[in-house]
Amino acid sequence: MGVFYEKIAVIGVGLIGASFALAARQKQICHQIVCYDASEEARTEAAALGIGDKVASDLSEAVSEADLILLAVPVGVMGQVVQEIAPFLKDGAVVTDTGSTKASVFKDVMPHLPEGCHFIGGHPMAGTEFSGPSAGFPSLFANRYWLLVPEHAPEQAVTTLSDCLTSLGASVEQMEMRYHDKVVAITSHLPHLIAYTIVGTATDLESDLKNDVIRFSASGFRDFTRIAASDPTMWRDVFLNNDEAVLEMLQRFNEDLSYLQRAIRWHEGDKLFDLFSRTRTIRKSIIDAGQDS
Amino acid sequence: MGVFYEKIAVIGVGLIGASFALAARQKQICHQIVCYDASEEARTEAAALGIGDKVASDLSEAVSEADLILLAVPVGVMGQVVQEIAPFLKDGAVVTDTGSTKASVFKDVMPHLPEGCHFIGGHPMAGTEFSGPSAGFPSLFANRYWLLVPEHAPEQAVTTLSDCLTSLGASVEQMEMRYHDKVVAITSHLPHLIAYTIVGTATDLESDLKNDVIRFSASGFRDFTRIAASDPTMWRDVFLNNDEAVLEMLQRFNEDLSYLQRAIRWHEGDKLFDLFSRTRTIRKSIIDAGQDS
Repeated sequence: MGVFYEKIAVIGVGLIGASFALAARQKQICHQIVCYDASEEARTEAAALGIGDKVASDLSEAVSEADLILLAVPVGVMGQVVQEIAPFLKDGAVVTDTGSTKASVFKDVMPHLPEGCHFIGGHPMAGTEFSGPSAGFPSLFANRYWLLVPEHAPEQAVTTLSDCLTSLGASVEQMEMRYHDKVVAITSHLPHLIAYTIVGTATDLESDLKNDVIRFSASGFRDFTRIAASDPTMWRDVFLNNDEAVLEMLQRFNEDLSYLQRAIRWHEGDKLFDLFSRTRTIRKSIIDAGQDS
Repeated sequence: MGVFYEKIAVIGVGLIGASFALAARQKQICHQIVCYDASEEARTEAAALGIGDKVASDLSEAVSEADLILLAVPVGVMGQVVQEIAPFLKDGAVVTDTGSTKASVFKDVMPHLPEGCHFIGGHPMAGTEFSGPSAGFPSLFANRYWLLVPEHAPEQAVTTLSDCLTSLGASVEQMEMRYHDKVVAITSHLPHLIAYTIVGTATDLESDLKNDVIRFSASGFRDFTRIAASDPTMWRDVFLNNDEAVLEMLQRFNEDLSYLQRAIRWHEGDKLFDLFSRTRTIRKSIIDAGQDS
């Protein structure tokens, strides 16, 4: 616990930005929190909900004199936002982000970062299928991993940010950016892509069948529809910005699916049974790792 | 409410059979419930857990004089079980099953069914990723669909079974067998196949990456591991017995996934955004249909 920064600016008040501002206020990790969003509607909503001490009407007001700037915008616009705020950043300011991809964010952000400022990549592994300021809640990060990708940032700045996030309840871990992108490609991006696909496939069925698919949606499909209800803009940007790792994992997935498809066609029950038995053990590992119950 | 049958025999005391026996006892839908399982271990466990009034040590004891026989065994052995119980079935006995596929069960069961007995296909759309007698609980079917496929069974027998299942809390709906198999192929079988595949793909990753995939498993992947922890024997049989409908849906899924894969490779963000927006609406339909919250 404690005050880690004088002023924090939160850019983007969707689910993540709003939750961070609410958590920061609750845990009093700074003296002032100023929010900003490019959408006037979101700014009005955030102000009405009392998210942050103040909702600024322009970027310069939000970031000037800020010690920490948290970018909670889609990964596709990170570079542009840093370009816009660069002239107003104070010397020594730390910029961090919450994007689900890291290599692309570093590539987009670093050219615009003023000398004397530092960038630390970040990725809170938390979320719901809801979006917008009203979706935010202060306990979103409690007991969730918040991955930090420091690359060349000074150790002191990384320690302060890490301690600050820990005080919000998050478990902070450091990771190299390309490795990060591979881990999330298989744990998050590929599952989302597949969920979007299968729900899309169902949407295209002839109408009687589609209605009964909705009506009798069993647990498997219901889980997929929840995943496939996630924010379209955010996920479009994720796939465009982690294309390399996603396409690599997708290639492996396709090979494995073809193997099962062939086993079904040729009635090779043993091959199916072997895989279905193996996948049970990874579930057990996840429960043992405390990631689900 | 009320007593629908004098004696019910439950063959197979896994999650579904045990839950049915517990629910039947709780709601007093019959005077006697006798269970049987081919596995001695399962029989011992079921007896210890007090599932049913009695756990019979052989099939003939279980089914003789039974008015309703519920087959809660993997779809791959339905035909064999009916062949074995056929000599002991009383005239007018009603046999029903709980398998996830229906065309294959009819094909396997009908040749062995004695004249004077009736078969009504059934499919309770309920389950968890746990299996075995101890996984059973009496409220498993409450507010869940139980699909009946009567085909040529007498109307009176269908009405009695339907009323009986309704009294256990299930919502009973009738369906034609091939249509049933298509609906479950997309809502249940394909999601399971894909979840098994992606968890299998992760299992095959080099070991550092695999460990971090487990450690940082995000919501998408965690949901998939839960689905992929389902009973291997049951699911092997499902895919072998609903191969036609599953392969048809898989073909559509593959086309749709290739389309997205290409959109990622060529950075066609609009195509991704369009699909991701469309899939949101089907989630809303499912919530509106009361199938999730």
